[in-house]
Amino acid sequence: MAKQPKTAISPTREENYPEWYQQVIRAADLADLSPVRGCMVIKPWGWGIWENMQQALDRMFKDTGHENAYFPLFIPMSFLEKEAEHVDGFAKECAVVTHHRLEPGPDGGLVPAGELEEPLIVRPTSETIIGAMYAKWVQSHRDLPILINQWANVVRWELRTRMFLRTTEFLWQEGHTAHATEEEAVEETNKMLEVYADFAENWMAMPVIKGEKTAGERFPGAVSTLTIEAMMQDRKALQSGTSHFLGQNFSKAQGIQFQDQNGETCFAWTTSWGVSTRLIGALIMTHSDDDGLIVPPRLAPAQIILLPIHKLESEADVMEYCENLKKELEAQQFGGLPIRVKIDNRDIRGGEKNWQHIKRGVPLRVEVGPKDIEKGGVFVGRRDTGKKQGYDRKEFVSIAADILQEIQQELYDRALKLREDNTRAFNDFEEFAAYFTPKNEDEPEIHGGFAICHFVDCPEMEEKLKPLKVTARCIPLDRPANPGICIFTGQATDKIGIFAKAY
Amino acid sequence: MAKQPKTAISPTREENYPEWYQQVIRAADLADLSPVRGCMVIKPWGWGIWENMQQALDRMFKDTGHENAYFPLFIPMSFLEKEAEHVDGFAKECAVVTHHRLEPGPDGGLVPAGELEEPLIVRPTSETIIGAMYAKWVQSHRDLPILINQWANVVRWELRTRMFLRTTEFLWQEGHTAHATEEEAVEETNKMLEVYADFAENWMAMPVIKGEKTAGERFPGAVSTLTIEAMMQDRKALQSGTSHFLGQNFSKAQGIQFQDQNGETCFAWTTSWGVSTRLIGALIMTHSDDDGLIVPPRLAPAQIILLPIHKLESEADVMEYCENLKKELEAQQFGGLPIRVKIDNRDIRGGEKNWQHIKRGVPLRVEVGPKDIEKGGVFVGRRDTGKKQGYDRKEFVSIAADILQEIQQELYDRALKLREDNTRAFNDFEEFAAYFTPKNEDEPEIHGGFAICHFVDCPEMEEKLKPLKVTARCIPLDRPANPGICIFTGQATDKIGIFAKAY
Repeated sequence: MAKQPKTAISPTREENYPEWYQQVIRAADLADLSPVRGCMVIKPWGWGIWENMQQALDRMFKDTGHENAYFPLFIPMSFLEKEAEHVDGFAKECAVVTHHRLEPGPDGGLVPAGELEEPLIVRPTSETIIGAMYAKWVQSHRDLPILINQWANVVRWELRTRMFLRTTEFLWQEGHTAHATEEEAVEETNKMLEVYADFAENWMAMPVIKGEKTAGERFPGAVSTLTIEAMMQDRKALQSGTSHFLGQNFSKAQGIQFQDQNGETCFAWTTSWGVSTRLIGALIMTHSDDDGLIVPPRLAPAQIILLPIHKLESEADVMEYCENLKKELEAQQFGGLPIRVKIDNRDIRGGEKNWQHIKRGVPLRVEVGPKDIEKGGVFVGRRDTGKKQGYDRKEFVSIAADILQEIQQELYDRALKLREDNTRAFNDFEEFAAYFTPKNEDEPEIHGGFAICHFVDCPEMEEKLKPLKVTARCIPLDRPANPGICIFTGQATDKIGIFAKAY
Repeated sequence: MAKQPKTAISPTREENYPEWYQQVIRAADLADLSPVRGCMVIKPWGWGIWENMQQALDRMFKDTGHENAYFPLFIPMSFLEKEAEHVDGFAKECAVVTHHRLEPGPDGGLVPAGELEEPLIVRPTSETIIGAMYAKWVQSHRDLPILINQWANVVRWELRTRMFLRTTEFLWQEGHTAHATEEEAVEETNKMLEVYADFAENWMAMPVIKGEKTAGERFPGAVSTLTIEAMMQDRKALQSGTSHFLGQNFSKAQGIQFQDQNGETCFAWTTSWGVSTRLIGALIMTHSDDDGLIVPPRLAPAQIILLPIHKLESEADVMEYCENLKKELEAQQFGGLPIRVKIDNRDIRGGEKNWQHIKRGVPLRVEVGPKDIEKGGVFVGRRDTGKKQGYDRKEFVSIAADILQEIQQELYDRALKLREDNTRAFNDFEEFAAYFTPKNEDEPEIHGGFAICHFVDCPEMEEKLKPLKVTARCIPLDRPANPGICIFTGQATDKIGIFAKAY
């Protein structure tokens, strides 16, 4: 195998993290820029990861009683206007359809024609259009709850885009539920946050903090927004999933009303919750290294790649050995599913091929050559640790699932350690500020990590945070409120928050 | 059970087929109209059928070597212009995005703002944008073939819409492949037609005729279009899937070029192929009856519905019996997958509940009451034949998959018989015309069926077909060309065509 003098990805994380991120995407063949401003193309390897994410989440949604449905891509402009905060949140960045055909223009090219009476918005989120349907479907308390999820594309006209993290069009799921009581809707909001946390930790191997957003960071129109926040390797936070308790705001705007058991007319209580292709960005920035992507085994489109090494005369033997090995491995289960195995017999140099799979983050690479066949063995490279080891073939088949589980755990442990090493409690604003500020002006920007402190959610806090480029990430749910002093205002408070720079 | 005096669906197929179709959709709770012109909402039962279609097709695409990817929703207007026939085909009916935000207008409401330099089209199909990416990805013959599929939403601004059959937005998959040789691309086009035919016949229980479209019915920009055509119960044809050989038309328009083994620069040969949510319309119109939908078992979101019948005091016993029966049935395989079983224990009248599942087309309904438990039995209703029969519980579990297979076959056989009974060969244009024309002017429109005849593809034929509202559906692939006389022109020809009225 060709020994590479340097790392596969240049620059390294240390040298230039944002550029490293772009280079990992390119090297792993996850996605590509498109000719449409801010829109990306998700390539097969990236799509394979998204497909696995979808399948796992979809199963979890169904297991918690939800069904899938599909609502229109377009939202009439007037629908957005019905919820005041909502329109403020989305009107500034939405794609507007104004015409329904093209016709030859004066200078030979095409021009838009057939102007619509009312412009249509390409959905930035679907509360309004789904709410309008729920208003039609719900009459009695017997029609509730409605527990529906939709897998869809949405468009937000973002000024600055970055692949997976913030693109004009992105893919997501949006759950929308309607309930007869406030209590039930709050319970749903919490339940779905748990589902997201479970998915992040057990499938993505990404530890998250569950919390509630402060008022300034809430979803436009929500009563409260719950979030899972993860720490990336550059110690910035990434909001990875949100679950909103919408109270009766949208049911009043859309008229979702029902007769309760006593025959009284009430407004329903609604929730919405979503995760998006942004999770692929989170996955990249949580686990990858200077040799490229590392995919947690449970989400890897191929968990094991078999690399036949042969000269022309030995090809048939080596390929037969590989095909059999593949079948044996596929008969093993990992995480309740058959192990996913691929054979790469493309006619390119072995070293180059091996590096391609390192850069794509395949958990295990297995080289098989005539010598391995002779001794009934395999030579296995682990992506997470870089360790290489020979195994007896039968032994490897029997422990492959265990190794994958070990890798899954190792990735989680590493990410948790990074977060724990970079989380600090603060009682003093000067120290807090220093955590996020380089000592000298000519030093590069620093990100500190997660800062935990008491706070009062007020304009004074926002003013002090702004120059630091730090935001309140959440009020963590697992820390019982206890009395303390707000580090921004000196006021007594029992509120504790996590603060960080964020994507 | 409440005996209904009439059929569940009114009007019947006989009385008013188009209205019957709409009523079946409503009664089966498949979909709903939305407030957005021409756009529908696919409800959970309809989505469940689509999900099963997607999973089966996706597996077939992967088994034939394709990978999934995702390309942008938007296409720059200039891209459409590059292929002349293509722009003619789609410019007249496309949603045009011209602005990227909304701002308060003079009269208080919102108005579009932030005009785009170049308008964007919401994809009506993705040849142009995908071709642009392929041009970037392909340099050498080693980069070929590219075998990619995308699951996506597309928008065509149709004048007249009908749920599932023709909606402004619809969901589909579009395969786009690029090859080094013409031969390989033609082979791909044929292969995917076979996949569609296999899916239609073996999953949808819908017999299809594989054929080639005449020049006038080709995809805009294609060299040839292959199609599968099915006969609906009103004897009209429904084009159910198409596979296009695009020659080098799109590779020349988009610049998909590669160096061949001799170092020469060549244009790639491309194909595209797709099926859409229209297939749900085809499924409805192929199998349903005057009591509502009939879903072929392989695609039914629930293949067996268990209906507990109890008074309050017997509920625990009956539910336990049902839960156990469900587990036993789910341990059985049908078509390689576990049988899908649901329990409906909602608190509504038994007769009403039973009818809901009849109207939704669940293949098997199983009633379980205290008396059934006493004798260890179940009472089973079959949706396709309407027959009801008691079984010993163990016996039923052991033969449930066989009964489902019987239903699947029965539905196919019925549909095939309908088509065979309504397909006629013609040697004479007058007889052909009479087949599609009521005897007296005041009689309702008639659809005849499929007409087979020799033809020459020419303007004279088109002129004679137009007043009959009949179109050439395809040149069937399984009928070897043989000499004959064109019934439209009297010219000698060896071309045989299938003609019909069509959706």
